[in-house]
Amino acid sequence: MKILLVGGQGTIGRKVAAAFTARGHEVITAGRNSGIVQVDITSPDSIENMYRQTGNIDACICTAGTGYYGPFEEMTTQLMMPGIEGKLLGQVNLVLMGKNYLNSGGSFTLTSGIAAQHPARNGTCVAMINGAVNSFVLGAAQEMKQERRINAVSPGLVEDSNERYGAFFPGYNLVPMNKLVNAYILSVAGAVNGKILKVYS
Amino acid sequence: MKILLVGGQGTIGRKVAAAFTARGHEVITAGRNSGIVQVDITSPDSIENMYRQTGNIDACICTAGTGYYGPFEEMTTQLMMPGIEGKLLGQVNLVLMGKNYLNSGGSFTLTSGIAAQHPARNGTCVAMINGAVNSFVLGAAQEMKQERRINAVSPGLVEDSNERYGAFFPGYNLVPMNKLVNAYILSVAGAVNGKILKVYS
Repeated sequence: MKILLVGGQGTIGRKVAAAFTARGHEVITAGRNSGIVQVDITSPDSIENMYRQTGNIDACICTAGTGYYGPFEEMTTQLMMPGIEGKLLGQVNLVLMGKNYLNSGGSFTLTSGIAAQHPARNGTCVAMINGAVNSFVLGAAQEMKQERRINAVSPGLVEDSNERYGAFFPGYNLVPMNKLVNAYILSVAGAVNGKILKVYS
Repeated sequence: MKILLVGGQGTIGRKVAAAFTARGHEVITAGRNSGIVQVDITSPDSIENMYRQTGNIDACICTAGTGYYGPFEEMTTQLMMPGIEGKLLGQVNLVLMGKNYLNSGGSFTLTSGIAAQHPARNGTCVAMINGAVNSFVLGAAQEMKQERRINAVSPGLVEDSNERYGAFFPGYNLVPMNKLVNAYILSVAGAVNGKILKVYS
């Protein structure tokens, strides 16, 4: 399979890329400042340009995007916009624009997160974005043609992020990276469609 | 109680206004072209101006806002923006900007919808918005101070919308209006916080 992995240089992306490469797939990483092709997912033009470079693909995985984490008291919609334009609308556009480049039977795998259901303190913006991604996937899955599929992987606090982010998530159980990677493999190589693959407990 | 009802002239809003008025509360309706005060919830300035006119309130209910319904194949983020700026960020701003005007012990009640979990055909944009509103409420509820509360009411296809919208929701059960109105009453007059009050079956 020819797999486009947006965010392939991130904490999660690197492990996902390694897993699919080890399984014999061709992985094209895409990132803002790294990867095989460059893309700024906040820009529809940049997304279109990326797909033109990759040509048709069998799977698109996105592990890119984040959102405002900070005091609720100080939160404004302006502070929320980068996350809305990136992790939310960026991922939406990867699907809306990418479905023309996705082969029959291919799949999209977006990334949401535990905050959709269990937001941490200061995490209301990210909660909102993750909830939006999940429900987008539920709707989009019904509209996919020619056996195309779409799922969301919803990670909890992953092992590899613990040092950097653990302090912001007191009481959150650490998710083993191999369990998270398996969710991406299930989405791409399995038959699931319209699923929110929750990787947390 | 002094209750601000944004969207008080809509299908749902009118019934909600009548119910709270009948219970002896002061209801200030707000709408783009109608109501006691005017507000365009897509504009933060307009929201601030509305709150300046109402002064402190005991509850803010929003039943306003909609989003793109139409073929998924033709959907673009541009078509999604009015709903994102209105039903999503408009409701978010009613909270972020309104918490300074909400009395201690007061409540926000936003409106999402069944599409968050069970999107109809052509409803992926609205699904996304509703899912976002629900998860925003989960996060915001944790951040409320001085016994302030926030909930979302998530209506299914309501009786009063059946003639206009029923054809778009084949197989959706009709929700009695009094059951829906009760959810708003529960949110405002009850003690619930951070709940998605699902009014569908």
